[in-house]
Amino acid sequence: MTHEIAVIPGDGIGKEVTPAAVEVLESLDIDFEFIEAEAGDAVKEETGEALPQETYDLAASADATLFGAAGETAADVILPLREAVDSFVNVRPAKAYPGIDAVRPETDLLFLRENTEGVYSGHEDRLTDDVSTLTRVVTESASERLAEFACDFVADSDKHDSFTIVHKANVMRETDGLFRDTVKSVADEQGIETDEVLMDAFATRVCLDPEQFDVVVCPNLAGDVLSDLAAGLVGGLGLLPSANIGPERALFEPVHGTAPDIAGENVANPAAKIISAAMMLEYLGYEEESEAVNAAVEATLADGPRTPDLGGDASTEDVTAAVIDRL
Amino acid sequence: MTHEIAVIPGDGIGKEVTPAAVEVLESLDIDFEFIEAEAGDAVKEETGEALPQETYDLAASADATLFGAAGETAADVILPLREAVDSFVNVRPAKAYPGIDAVRPETDLLFLRENTEGVYSGHEDRLTDDVSTLTRVVTESASERLAEFACDFVADSDKHDSFTIVHKANVMRETDGLFRDTVKSVADEQGIETDEVLMDAFATRVCLDPEQFDVVVCPNLAGDVLSDLAAGLVGGLGLLPSANIGPERALFEPVHGTAPDIAGENVANPAAKIISAAMMLEYLGYEEESEAVNAAVEATLADGPRTPDLGGDASTEDVTAAVIDRL
Ligand SMILES: CC(C)[C@H](C(=O)O)[C@@H](O)C(=O)O
Ligand SMILES: CC(C)[C@H](C(=O)O)[C@@H](O)C(=O)O
Repeated sequence: MTHEIAVIPGDGIGKEVTPAAVEVLESLDIDFEFIEAEAGDAVKEETGEALPQETYDLAASADATLFGAAGETAADVILPLREAVDSFVNVRPAKAYPGIDAVRPETDLLFLRENTEGVYSGHEDRLTDDVSTLTRVVTESASERLAEFACDFVADSDKHDSFTIVHKANVMRETDGLFRDTVKSVADEQGIETDEVLMDAFATRVCLDPEQFDVVVCPNLAGDVLSDLAAGLVGGLGLLPSANIGPERALFEPVHGTAPDIAGENVANPAAKIISAAMMLEYLGYEEESEAVNAAVEATLADGPRTPDLGGDASTEDVTAAVIDRL
Repeated sequence: MTHEIAVIPGDGIGKEVTPAAVEVLESLDIDFEFIEAEAGDAVKEETGEALPQETYDLAASADATLFGAAGETAADVILPLREAVDSFVNVRPAKAYPGIDAVRPETDLLFLRENTEGVYSGHEDRLTDDVSTLTRVVTESASERLAEFACDFVADSDKHDSFTIVHKANVMRETDGLFRDTVKSVADEQGIETDEVLMDAFATRVCLDPEQFDVVVCPNLAGDVLSDLAAGLVGGLGLLPSANIGPERALFEPVHGTAPDIAGENVANPAAKIISAAMMLEYLGYEEESEAVNAAVEATLADGPRTPDLGGDASTEDVTAAVIDRL
């Protein structure tokens, strides 16, 4: 069976780390067909559109998409692409890696972020000169779908056995109340243990003691901010992967951006993008291969070669070759 | 001139640290009239109301209010009380104190949080069984008022000369766009330098290097979460004060909660509440006295006596007496 993979490098170092991940995937004994498409600042400059329709359509039909990064146009690219793959959950692991100087090296979290609604609904109005509004939408159905994913995730895992629901239902009583109650009742039905914490209290507590948390289930903006907070605790966005999962397809992206200061110099660290590709392998059912790629990246991070961000002087290509060598 | 001060201890350790702060204020040569009122879980249990009308009215007429903490009913107490004093800005310093084990001891931030709108608007609806909505409100007038406060604050200060605008205008384009543009244009007019950063990026960057930020101006929920994140970096909520400032009156509260595990034992650390009282002194125009109280608290934190949370075995009363002795 051939897997059709959309490859959207985007801007900046996206153009370097995405081919690196493709190279790693090509070295495996799996039948992939890679189809490349454009998105981001550069294509907007040329065509006026940050996300050409054909790129959207490709992501909406491919089995999976590998996305790199986009610059100024990031929101115009990534939000529609998440929609293209009908993604309802954004999976964001945040753990410290060997060789990285971390504020909290013991951090090992996994965020399951609602990926369709909340303040990301896109409904905004300027009612008068003075007053603007945004309609924050929370539905039972989206909360349920997220909760079912979270329960399956925990049930299928050897490593996790419960999750924490993060919300701000003391202020957003109806909307986050619906979120919290729905997620909790799905988990109760499925016999999965949960606890809950307010998003502001989570921000304090995760700094003081990240080990008290494990899997975190939360609304869209809470997931955005708190997973970036966790990224700060593990030493930055540099090595973090993410997966936007939908019912039939999915999109995988590193959490880092385009890094314009080092773009085009063949020194970008491809690790986050390669780990994102490992998440894709797992999603497509290639668990062994996924683990092998993860292990090869970790060994390379630990023993080198290393790119300059980690104090080495290896190139993106050197690191990619070293990962492939270790497979 | 007599200053009428509403004193609302609330629940838990609020009942211990609030009298401690009053005692410190009484030791100064200032004419205060303290009037006590009830709020919180205990009064709700008795009367059915977490915030009795007479408490609201007192806060709405006193020159300033000292609030302690409330338990389960926190949101039902503090949100209306902020309204009672017509507070448009929540001032939240977050700096590490001597003697406190901090994740990032070099943190020294001051949040100016919008205090009336955003997702705190209170407009929520359950449209159907499936769909709930919240109307997030952002106005030019509230953004302007906050910006003017921020500019005056920076202009009047020897320590600060610019501020950072934190927002999520790449997603909340109309609402946070209005916030960002309004704050920036007020600052530009007044010749105050600003920079801006997205709230998710702020969460990462403040962990990696808190010294790159100083004064942070942000919408309501961003201020809630990011100031609590900063609290995590400085070692917890324990020592952080806050001020809810309105045009004619203001309310001062420690950021910590009711600490039910230690309540009633005369071991609660009164420092955050006493520092909040020092913020009140400054607000009322007693700058020297404010500085003296702050210095006395810092000396007590450094040299003792210390309450058990800081490894000592002194009581709330011992620490309060030591602060007064140092004045
Ligand atoms: C670029 C932006 C729209 C996006 C988001 O807010 O989701 C980004 O911050 C992320 O977390 O992937
Ligand atoms: C209790 C709650 C409503 C409140 C808030 O969200 O503002 C608290 O978290 C705070 O920051 O003072």
